[in-house]
Amino acid sequence: MSDFEKNKRNKIRRIPKRASYSKETIYPIIDAAPICHLGFDEDGQPFVIPTIHARVNDTLFGHGVKSSMKLKQSASGITMCITVTLFDGLVVARSLFHHSVNYRSTIVFGQGRLVTDAKEKLEALMAIAENLIHGRWDEAREPNKKELRATSVVAIEIESASAKTRNGPPVDDDEDYELPIWAGIVPIKTQYLYPETDSRLR
Amino acid sequence: MSDFEKNKRNKIRRIPKRASYSKETIYPIIDAAPICHLGFDEDGQPFVIPTIHARVNDTLFGHGVKSSMKLKQSASGITMCITVTLFDGLVVARSLFHHSVNYRSTIVFGQGRLVTDAKEKLEALMAIAENLIHGRWDEAREPNKKELRATSVVAIEIESASAKTRNGPPVDDDEDYELPIWAGIVPIKTQYLYPETDSRLR
Repeated sequence: MSDFEKNKRNKIRRIPKRASYSKETIYPIIDAAPICHLGFDEDGQPFVIPTIHARVNDTLFGHGVKSSMKLKQSASGITMCITVTLFDGLVVARSLFHHSVNYRSTIVFGQGRLVTDAKEKLEALMAIAENLIHGRWDEAREPNKKELRATSVVAIEIESASAKTRNGPPVDDDEDYELPIWAGIVPIKTQYLYPETDSRLR
Repeated sequence: MSDFEKNKRNKIRRIPKRASYSKETIYPIIDAAPICHLGFDEDGQPFVIPTIHARVNDTLFGHGVKSSMKLKQSASGITMCITVTLFDGLVVARSLFHHSVNYRSTIVFGQGRLVTDAKEKLEALMAIAENLIHGRWDEAREPNKKELRATSVVAIEIESASAKTRNGPPVDDDEDYELPIWAGIVPIKTQYLYPETDSRLR
């Protein structure tokens, strides 16, 4: 897989050693997250909205109902910013200054378009369902025509992107390693707990 | 605690029964999240950046180094959008159309200002540390003058906000309750795992 060109928009200015412009780093982060945060501008006011998503090749898909602001904005051809963040741990240093977090995050830029082709729309909805619950499309009742009409899908072609990640132990100032203060990391995991069956199940 | 006025900016247009404008709902969501997503506009391009935060009364605090774009933008007096999302579970319905997620999210609007008062800056940094690791300020080495100079703190007075939440079981179409398809919820929890001690600990 290729790299994205580093430019003014996607360049990581702070702590560039944590940056990556490679699809091999960026795409697994997008795929590992159940939700993303979508940023757009409406009349000079920034909005950031959480939403579920899926990636197919170099395209991100999102969905919603036609009347939603998110969908209207996304499909209007304006440039969007989509941010995916995976929070992996607390970095507990000896000094407060060097406290940090371990994370994998990626920022994607691209223009949105409404998906009008029926085949692409169905494939996008399958990808979104798959990204949320693997294998669910084959188990549940498929969308009927009325439901498909009520659902809008937006595609954002990924024009530019970058990732920023931190992992590993705290890094303290040399002299602080002598201090009698606990340091280390607290790993954080998004845990899927035991399913709770709906009380109305047949 | 009072409610925020519902206006064009913070009004939840989709599924208004999931909306709240009450500080009693909004503030606990902000306080429960270790990170938020900060949205701002730079030369017409929206940016969404993950960051750690803390709330003190009606003010959100964030921090960073002076040179960061995030800090420069935040402190420039432009209107920001700060979104906090807690992802609580998968809602597994009988039909794909009614699949959903359980979540608590809040969107906050306000203008940023650079914190210049030394006392307010220290209190903000304490609040940010406390929001990440309760009690850590008293254990770790406190920031020295050089570290404090290198750290910028931004305050965003919360002008307007709203929350949107979903919880509970799937809601299917009446006729679908007869289908022999499993339905229910899969709860999701952010789990803090056992701490890993730094190998260089004395």
